[in-house]
Parts: sequence; structure tokens; C-alpha cells
Amino acid sequence: MPKKTKPCRAHSKMAKTTARATGRPDRGPSPNAVPSSAATATPASSDARDEHLAIAREMAKRQREISVSEFFTRNRHLLGFDNPRKALLTTIKEAVDNSLDACEEAGILPEVQVEVVPSDGHEDRFRVIVEDNGPGIVREQVPKVFAKLLYGSKFHRLKMSRGQQGIGISAACMYGQLTTGQPTRILSRVSPKRPAYYCELQIDTRTNEPRVLREAKVDWEQPHGTRVEIELEGKYQKGRQSVDDYLEQTAIANPHVTIRYRLPEQEGVVLARASAQLPAEPREIRPHPYGVEIGTLMKMLQSTRARTLHGFLVQDFSRVSPRNASDICTAAGLSPRARPSRIAQREVEGLYRAIQATKLRRPPTDCIVPIGQEQMLKGLRKGVRADFYECVTRPPEVYRGNPFVVEAGIAYGGDLPPEGPCRLLRFANRVPLQYQQGACAMTEAVTETNWRAYGLQQPSGGLPEGPLVIMVHLASVWVPFTSESKEAIAHYPEIIKEIKLALQECGRKLALFLGRCRRAAEAQRKREYIERYIPHIGIALREILALSEKEERQVVTRLQDILERSRKK
Amino acid sequence: MPKKTKPCRAHSKMAKTTARATGRPDRGPSPNAVPSSAATATPASSDARDEHLAIAREMAKRQREISVSEFFTRNRHLLGFDNPRKALLTTIKEAVDNSLDACEEAGILPEVQVEVVPSDGHEDRFRVIVEDNGPGIVREQVPKVFAKLLYGSKFHRLKMSRGQQGIGISAACMYGQLTTGQPTRILSRVSPKRPAYYCELQIDTRTNEPRVLREAKVDWEQPHGTRVEIELEGKYQKGRQSVDDYLEQTAIANPHVTIRYRLPEQEGVVLARASAQLPAEPREIRPHPYGVEIGTLMKMLQSTRARTLHGFLVQDFSRVSPRNASDICTAAGLSPRARPSRIAQREVEGLYRAIQATKLRRPPTDCIVPIGQEQMLKGLRKGVRADFYECVTRPPEVYRGNPFVVEAGIAYGGDLPPEGPCRLLRFANRVPLQYQQGACAMTEAVTETNWRAYGLQQPSGGLPEGPLVIMVHLASVWVPFTSESKEAIAHYPEIIKEIKLALQECGRKLALFLGRCRRAAEAQRKREYIERYIPHIGIALREILALSEKEERQVVTRLQDILERSRKK
Repeated sequence: MPKKTKPCRAHSKMAKTTARATGRPDRGPSPNAVPSSAATATPASSDARDEHLAIAREMAKRQREISVSEFFTRNRHLLGFDNPRKALLTTIKEAVDNSLDACEEAGILPEVQVEVVPSDGHEDRFRVIVEDNGPGIVREQVPKVFAKLLYGSKFHRLKMSRGQQGIGISAACMYGQLTTGQPTRILSRVSPKRPAYYCELQIDTRTNEPRVLREAKVDWEQPHGTRVEIELEGKYQKGRQSVDDYLEQTAIANPHVTIRYRLPEQEGVVLARASAQLPAEPREIRPHPYGVEIGTLMKMLQSTRARTLHGFLVQDFSRVSPRNASDICTAAGLSPRARPSRIAQREVEGLYRAIQATKLRRPPTDCIVPIGQEQMLKGLRKGVRADFYECVTRPPEVYRGNPFVVEAGIAYGGDLPPEGPCRLLRFANRVPLQYQQGACAMTEAVTETNWRAYGLQQPSGGLPEGPLVIMVHLASVWVPFTSESKEAIAHYPEIIKEIKLALQECGRKLALFLGRCRRAAEAQRKREYIERYIPHIGIALREILALSEKEERQVVTRLQDILERSRKK
Repeated sequence: MPKKTKPCRAHSKMAKTTARATGRPDRGPSPNAVPSSAATATPASSDARDEHLAIAREMAKRQREISVSEFFTRNRHLLGFDNPRKALLTTIKEAVDNSLDACEEAGILPEVQVEVVPSDGHEDRFRVIVEDNGPGIVREQVPKVFAKLLYGSKFHRLKMSRGQQGIGISAACMYGQLTTGQPTRILSRVSPKRPAYYCELQIDTRTNEPRVLREAKVDWEQPHGTRVEIELEGKYQKGRQSVDDYLEQTAIANPHVTIRYRLPEQEGVVLARASAQLPAEPREIRPHPYGVEIGTLMKMLQSTRARTLHGFLVQDFSRVSPRNASDICTAAGLSPRARPSRIAQREVEGLYRAIQATKLRRPPTDCIVPIGQEQMLKGLRKGVRADFYECVTRPPEVYRGNPFVVEAGIAYGGDLPPEGPCRLLRFANRVPLQYQQGACAMTEAVTETNWRAYGLQQPSGGLPEGPLVIMVHLASVWVPFTSESKEAIAHYPEIIKEIKLALQECGRKLALFLGRCRRAAEAQRKREYIERYIPHIGIALREILALSEKEERQVVTRLQDILERSRKK
């Protein structure tokens, strides 16, 4: 391209020489600098001849805003819609997780129905229907909840819940619309005293706003609840990482939930609740100062309702006592009565340092609601037939200012496959994680635990082997996922350490059980010897000593008593 | 929580019975259904006593929009800001990639300067300064380009470029602001006839809109270009995945670029261009019908400028001839003169099927600009000292309607470490990929290639070993990355196949080279034998036959000639 390269090389030479001539300024030229003489050149006349200005303007014309829907339509694999099989699973997962969150928040024992119906005339299309007995969604909110990405109630608060991003279910609707052109159908009822609200939704991906195609008041036998129906291009397949798998694991981690489902070419299945007790409702907490970065601190200062710095520190954070607040103000050399919004940049930095330097109590941890040992056992017993079960709930810990609790469970023996690596069930806030096991902190914790010490086989760097299921649950106000599709936990050392401790507790119990088994087997073997050989000895003695049958029986029983006693010692 | 569970169990029972009583409707009740009597109940009076309605309303109050900035602030690891070291690299990478894109689009030979300056008083803080001689950015665009996520010129077009998401550089500014509270400082000049524009920017993460803190016209020795300065919390460390590493690899894949950089506690480095020839400018293309999903087709129909369906098909897609368009219309049973926007849902589906069923030419591929064999060799020679170099550029291919080109290069021997696995350099649209090598399609292609066939060591399932560097480059109008941080390529079979073919071509050349080396070594050894022993034979003969020195010399030279000739055979 001679026409192009010629002028440019000239330019680049020019730039080179200037670059050599003058050292780079460190902090950008001072804004007070005098405008260069060039500034005074009359643009109008010169522009025509000004090649680069023209190019810059040309390029400016092409700058445009990108809606988050457009972005995720193109990058849908980031949300778990990589392929038809995973898309089907992700859709069901997002809908069920929302249902469970809603029921629990409203204090309702969840009843969830899942249906996957092949669409007539397409073998690669399905209608996914998920229905719950939750509180329902008020009419005005329905469109945005289901057809607007980055909209929700869970992102802006620190509270343990399954959903946290405000993307999932809307992404599912978007995927359905993209692959089938069909709208999402919602049915929602907030009160037995009112009719249900029905609507058909699409996302305007250009604006990331919902479009309501039809709506109506309708009859519905549910007194309250929500029903979402999405038609999408998908693939149904049983086995690991299947929909069945997800629903069964969900039942294990949520023993208070009843799930009914009907999948293609199958009988309906009912996973009845193993416990009628709702988990306690998690408490929302304010951020802990140690977990807040300087930029976030600035934002909080600008938007706080508090009128004074002291009030801001006490009200907007957890674990900052009035005393702490005063200490921080003193350390930062700021007046406790200063207006938060007025605190300029340099002062924020001082404040930030003062906070980091002040000793504060760890974040409150009663905001985390673990499954609990008893409930986990119920769940495991429901899902896995084994000889030995053990579950552990660790005390709460903290990473980056976020409280979390780790739980672990083990099932051994019984119907479990005796050969091969164990099965690892991973959960975050009661949601099964089915993909990217290799990339997950939980997997690392399991493989780094020394299971040989507990009497199990374990190839180096691998999962332990044998008839074993390991369950790990991380509960937190903010679960650090490695991707939007929420498939693996990031490798925070604090988290990995807690998981290992939980696994070790389970492991020790398992070791005791395995020991008992071995001893029992041994004893059994000895008893069998006695039972097998004593009678023959009896017969022999009778012949040698010419005993009567009665005498023989006496001798035999005595012998048996003696041997039994010696064996038991 | 008795207060809660009691009413709920009641409810769930109710739901259960109704659920049993009535089979689930397949397609949501018809909107024409008669409103249930409940509908007529006067809300006002009943609401007070209606627990669930109250809950639903309470929950509705908490629903809120989440700005994309807030989302990525919290999930910054998705963008490559996992830890301070990676954050520093990502920031430089985003800035440099943008500079190179801008220069090339404007037809300017790129001169890029990179500086990393430790901030006084903080050992974990740096100021990153990246300056280019590009066309500059017009004043009105500067704030949005640098301080608004999902804003850019590259997302909405199908054209090969380094950037494609409109997130990168704004995310870097956001990270700097979050960790240091400092604004981003921009200096931009679009013409030697005008002064430069200077401004200090922050992102309002609540709205994802830029805030200009200061701006001014200033002097600048660059006739045109852009300079961005970001202060951030980071960590500088040499070695693999370092900034140095990134810049060196960039020079390899971009031999037409000159990069000057100065890193902490180091001399300034200049990577001078190895070629003064700009790559041809990639052409923008329209989407190919086979790569368009039904939802996208609907969107295109709604927003097209074309007045007729026939015009729409010909104008808005690539490879649809007027003839093809007519065939598609006939197949879909639609009038070629139909108004695109009027085509309703069922018709779209027919149209979609008709398109898929119509034979169309493959997408145009001249829109992809590979580095090219010659340029790749220049780049490799510049970056790696070896004995043998080979580069291959494959013919264009297509995945999901997107054209792409694969290139591969090999360097062997010389200064390369003789032991251990080879070094794999991965590039996408001329950008080095430094993380997640294990998750990348390129790695899979390399490990699945049988390098033993080319005379190299290779552990099963691993990279080949020896003094070897392998370079793979994927150029496409849309590179399928596995995450926003653009570190690995998704596993499309079409892409993996092409990479393998390219590697095999290089491998065969390498095998020939290695063969030659072996033969040369062999020949050398034989020659040494001859040179070593013939003289002794001469001496022996002389003594036995009592030859004169002259005769001996003749015998020796004759013998050598004979043996040399026989050796050469």
C-alpha cells in the first residue's frame, strides 16, 4: 500500500526523532501549559488538507455503545451456553435456583416442578417448564426479572443466596429467543385472592430492555408461585453433568425441597423432601472495612446517607464500633463531624490507611446458614446408599472481608462402585457445581488431602479411590466463582485450608469405621473356624474315648465356650 | 422459625394436592381464559391480611439494575485483574493492543512507548504510561473510549482487529481507580495543526458513565498520537508471563512495530521494527448466512435499511447473490418484495430453514490478513536465536460462518535450551496469549500432533521436547476466546484441525533439517578417521617399502582421494 505507507514512515520518523530528543514527561504536561502556536491555526481552512484529523474523525464515527445483551449473545459460552446439552442444563439450573431462593426468602417450603418437553417437529428443540410455589413476582417486575440482563435483588447486598449476578434467567430467555425465536412465557401469582398474571417476553438485545408481546389475567390452580416456560435449542442426555444429575444433587444439598420432574422419554420422578424444616433465613450484612478497596470507599463516601464521617463509619460498615470510628478519625487526622461527601481524594487515602491500620473485630459470621450436619446426613442418605456416612460443618471463616462456612460429607461402601476414583459432589450456597471440576478449589483441596492416612487408596495428585462419595459445600455472602457460568471456585488459600480441615475430620471418622470393619471381619473368620472344626474334634474324641452322644455334646459345647472366650480376649 | 414454617407447610400441602389433582398445562393457560372469581376480590381490603402479597411486594422493592461497571468491579478476575502482577500486565496489554489497532487502521507504522514507574511512597503501586504515534482520538470520544465499559468501534463489525469487546482499556482505568483512587490521565492529539487535548477521567461505576475531572489544551511534541497514564496497584516481576515477555512476543508477531519500554530498575529497551512494511488493512465483511441464528436473523430483519426481503438478503449478508436470494424466497414461500420488518415469527422460521437449505458460497476470506511467512520469519529471527526456522501460512477456513487463518512457525537449535519441553508461543490476531495455556485449543493441537515422526522427543499427551520454539497464530474476524480476559481459544474442531495441518507442514521441514544434520555429523566423523589414520599408514608403507618422502606423500594423497570418493558415495 504505497499510498499509505509513504506519509506514515515520514510521520513515524518524525515521532522517533522527537521521542529521542525529549525525555517522556512523568505526569502528563501540566494543564496550565500555554496552548501551542498550532492551536491558533484556523481549523476550517487547514482541516481539508489534514489527513490524520480526517482519519480520527472517520474512526470516531464508528464508536458505539455495546449493550450487555449484545455482548453476552455473542459470548454466550461465558454464561454456560457453550453447546446445546449444557444450554439445556443451565436453563433449568437458573430457573430452579431462582425458585428456591424465592421460596426460602418468603419462608415457604419449596415445591418445584421441572418439565422438559420435546418441541413437535424439531428433534433438537425443547420447552423447559419450571414451576414453583414461591411468593410469585409482582406484575411490574416480571418483565425485567426475566428479560433484562444485570437486573436483580441479590447483587447489591451481602447476603447468602444461590443467585448473585442478576444475569442467569434472563440469559436463558435470551438464548431461547436466539435459537428458536420463541418468547419466554411467564405465569406468576402473588396471592390466592388475585388471578395469576401471564405474559410473553422477549429481550430487545440492542437496548437490553424487555418487550412484552402479550399479557393477561388468567386462572391458575397454584395459590401463589411462578411458572417459567422457555423454548430453546438443546440436547437431552443422561449421565454425569445431566439434568437428572443436577436435580438429584440439588435434593441432596436441599433436604427441605420437594422436586418433581419429567424428562424426555421418561416416567415422572418425585424427589420428596427428607426434612420439613426450612433453613433459617440468612441475614444481610454490611461490608467489613478490611474487604473494601479505596475506590469503593470513595464511592461509599459519596453515596452514604450518614451526615458525618463518624456516622458513616459506624452505620455503613460492620464491626466498626463508635470507639473504633473515633480511633480511625484520629489516626486519619480527620474530624469525626466531617461531611463524608466532602472528603477529597488525598483525605480518602489517609482514611483508607487509617482503617487498614485500626484493629477491628472479624466480620459477623451468623449471617451464613450452613446446611448443618444433621440435614447434610439426611440429604446424603437420601441420595446415596452406603454403609458409612459422616458430615462436618466447620466454624465460619473470612476471605477478603467476606465470611464463609465450609461443610464436608463422606459416604462409603454400600451400593457405591468399589473400583475407580471417588465421586466428588461440589456445592456453593446449596447449588451443585457440575462443570470445570479440574479448575475448582474444592478439587484441589480433596487431591491435596492425604487419604492414605485414612486407609484409602490414592494415586499421587489424584482423587482417593474406592466406594466413596465426597461432598463439599461452600456457603458465603459472596462466592468467588471463576466465571459467570458459576462452575468452579477461585483458589483462595483461606477457603482451601478450611475445606482440607473439614475433609480431615471426616477422614479420621472414616478411618475408625474401616478399622472396625477389618476387626469384625477377622472375628467372623475365627468364629467360622470354630464352628467348622469343633464338631469333627467331637466325633474323633467320641471314637477314641468311646463317649456317649450326650458326653460328646457336652465336650463340644465346653470346647466351644473355651475357644469363644479365648477368641473374644 | 415456627412463625414461618407453619403457614408454609400448609401452603405447600395445598400446592401438592392441586399439583396432583391437575396435570400440568403444556403451554401456559390461554390468555383468553376467564379471570378467576378471585380476580374480582377488592384488593385494598384484603391486602392487609394477605401475607404472600406483602412478601412479594417487599421483595419487588429490592429489585435493581446492576451497571456493567459494578458487575465487573466485583468480578474483575474475569477481565484478567485476578492479582496485582496480572493486573499490571493486563493494563499494559490493553493499552498497547489499542495503540497498534489505531495506528494500523490509520495506516501509520506504529511506534509505541511503554513505561512502568513505581509511585513514590507505595511499593505496590505503579504508574503505567503507554504512548503511541497513532491518529489520536477526537476530543468528544476520549472520555467514553477510556472510561465507559462496553463502548467501542470494534464489536459491531466483522473485521480482524486486536480488540473486539470494548471493555479492556476502560476496565484497566476502573481497576486503577478502584485500587488507588487516582484518575486516568489521557493526552491525545489528532493533528499537528492543533494542540493536544489533555483530560483526567474516572468511571462512575453506578452508571457506567465517564466523569471528566479536568481537561485542557496542551503542548505536546507528538504531531499526532495518544498517551494514556493509569496508576494502579500492581506487582512487577520478570520471567514468563511478565510484561517484558509480552512486549517481546508482541514484537515477534508484529515485525512492523517499534516498541520502546522502560520497566522498574531497568535500562530502557528498544525493540526496533524488523520490517518497514505495514500489514495490508483487513476488510470488514458482512455476516455469512450460515453463521446467523434465527434470533439474530429476526433482529436483522427488524433493523435492516433494505426495503424488500430480496434486497435484505443480498445487501446485509455476504455471499448471497441475487440468484441465491430469489431461490431462498421461493424455498421459504415468501415474496421477494415483502417488507423485511413485516415478516412475522413463523415466516422467519421458514426463511431461516430456507437459508440453511440453500447452497451458498463460503464466506470471503480475503478479509483476513495473516502475518505471512516472510514476516513471521523476520519476527522469529528477531526474537529467537536458532539454527533452523520454518513458518507456514494456511489457506483460509471457516468456523460458525467466521473466516479464519492459521499460521505456525518453528525455531530449532541455536541458543535454545536443549532440555525440557518446547516453548509454545500463542497468538490471536497478532496478540500474545500468556495465560491458561492448558485450556487453549492451540495447546491441544500441539500435544495431539505426533512429533516423534519428525525426529523429536515427546512424552505421551505432552509438548515435544528439545531446543524448540513453536509459534501458533490464529487470525479471524471473531476470535472465540474462552473468557473476557482473552487468554485461551475455544476448542472448535475446525480450528484445531487447521493448526495441526500447519504444524505438520513445519514438522516435515524440521525432519529434513534434522536428517541433514545427522548425515553431516556422520560424514564429519568419517573424514576425521581418514585424516587421522592415513598419515600413519603412509609412514608404515614408507618403512616397509623403503619409499622416499616424495613417494610417501604421493601414496598418502592417492589413498585419501580414493577413500574420500568412496565415502562420498
